[in-house]
Amino acid sequence: MAERDIMENVQQIEGRNAVLEAFRSGQTIDKVYLLDGCQDGPIRTILREAKKCDTLIQFVSKQRLDQLSETKAHQGAIAVIAAYKYYEVEDMLELARSKNEAPFLFILDGIEDPHNLGAIIRTANLAGAHGVIIPKRRAVGLTATVAKTSAGALNYTMVARVTNLNDTIKRLKDEGMWFVCADMGGTTMYDLNLTGSIGLVIGNEGEGVSKLVKENCDMVASIPMKGDIDSLNASVATGVLAYEIVRQRMHG
Amino acid sequence: MAERDIMENVQQIEGRNAVLEAFRSGQTIDKVYLLDGCQDGPIRTILREAKKCDTLIQFVSKQRLDQLSETKAHQGAIAVIAAYKYYEVEDMLELARSKNEAPFLFILDGIEDPHNLGAIIRTANLAGAHGVIIPKRRAVGLTATVAKTSAGALNYTMVARVTNLNDTIKRLKDEGMWFVCADMGGTTMYDLNLTGSIGLVIGNEGEGVSKLVKENCDMVASIPMKGDIDSLNASVATGVLAYEIVRQRMHG
Repeated sequence: MAERDIMENVQQIEGRNAVLEAFRSGQTIDKVYLLDGCQDGPIRTILREAKKCDTLIQFVSKQRLDQLSETKAHQGAIAVIAAYKYYEVEDMLELARSKNEAPFLFILDGIEDPHNLGAIIRTANLAGAHGVIIPKRRAVGLTATVAKTSAGALNYTMVARVTNLNDTIKRLKDEGMWFVCADMGGTTMYDLNLTGSIGLVIGNEGEGVSKLVKENCDMVASIPMKGDIDSLNASVATGVLAYEIVRQRMHG
Repeated sequence: MAERDIMENVQQIEGRNAVLEAFRSGQTIDKVYLLDGCQDGPIRTILREAKKCDTLIQFVSKQRLDQLSETKAHQGAIAVIAAYKYYEVEDMLELARSKNEAPFLFILDGIEDPHNLGAIIRTANLAGAHGVIIPKRRAVGLTATVAKTSAGALNYTMVARVTNLNDTIKRLKDEGMWFVCADMGGTTMYDLNLTGSIGLVIGNEGEGVSKLVKENCDMVASIPMKGDIDSLNASVATGVLAYEIVRQRMHG
């Protein structure tokens, strides 16, 4: 697939208080430009927040800041926020059709950790899935950390954000897709038929798949657990299940 | 397996400079006690370092600090360092023997990210591996972050730290173990016989498996890659390969 333009729009925030406020409100900031050599309190506070958030920091000259500034009132600090582009579920089905493949989608029921979401998008890309569906609420969206952790996969793999996962699952079932969710107490994944048009449903890191979503799934797949603890890391579990689907697709 | 006592010894560091120095030297500090309400420079610097390191911070009263202090010269700061216990490779082989199972070990050739190491130890536990071997140099050891990310698995799964991975691999080969490393351009994992006494070798996040280690392996296994990017996250790749071994062990 050609590289997609995931940066829908880039927003710039200027001025010490505005930048600091953006950090404190939890907005995802991709990069912050700070006046080189400036040691005063507010700038050092921004620097501290930026380090805490693992934001890219660039120290630049006053001339460079003036040049970057849109407001001409940067006060030594400019933050850049990127908003990533979301696709529609229909785009994913269209991609599957264009490749003449049975649709293979990941449905994430409330993944909260951006590192997990990034790793899962990476897995979706390599397992040949046509897209990743996430809910709008109670889940992490496409932040800069997600983009970074996806190791470039977000440039190639579509992510859709839907209001109601259950409505989306029902609609896709009407179109002939099957849904399998990962949960304890289901059928061992090796014993399920996971070929054909399939949606792999992965639950929240702590809570697992929500009750209603589970009820809407056709199958519950379990990863064999031979140890002492409860569950795999969410992105690892997704990888293990996705590759069982890949194996069955290759040999089915 | 019974829960192990992974905390071999707990060390306490007291005094502002000593605590700050411990952070700056890169020691893994589990928890730091700071004098509540104290706003002076050195304490705020410690607080900043602690936040940067994701260390647990507890603000306590002077009475509580005095009580915790061993030196009675805490100056408002006490850090607690935990050293996790490493096992010997022989302990893992003994565990396999006691369970009447063919040894199944993970060998990590330079994993640097503590979140990956934690997730891999978690996977090792659930996939029924008998232990995880890591090198002493150029790799993350058992830090507090690793313990936390392992979701308790570090209490059950043994980790050994060896000076030279190649020597360890050679010795284990002499004892009849087979080694498979994950790398591109190898045989598709589904087409390899991964049953029996096996060591799964996983390379560094960026560099992959080192040349000499790869040469010492009997097989090179590749995960099918159907996407646009290069590789899975290291802990996801470990999970996918480990569960292919589990599948073959269950059905072999």
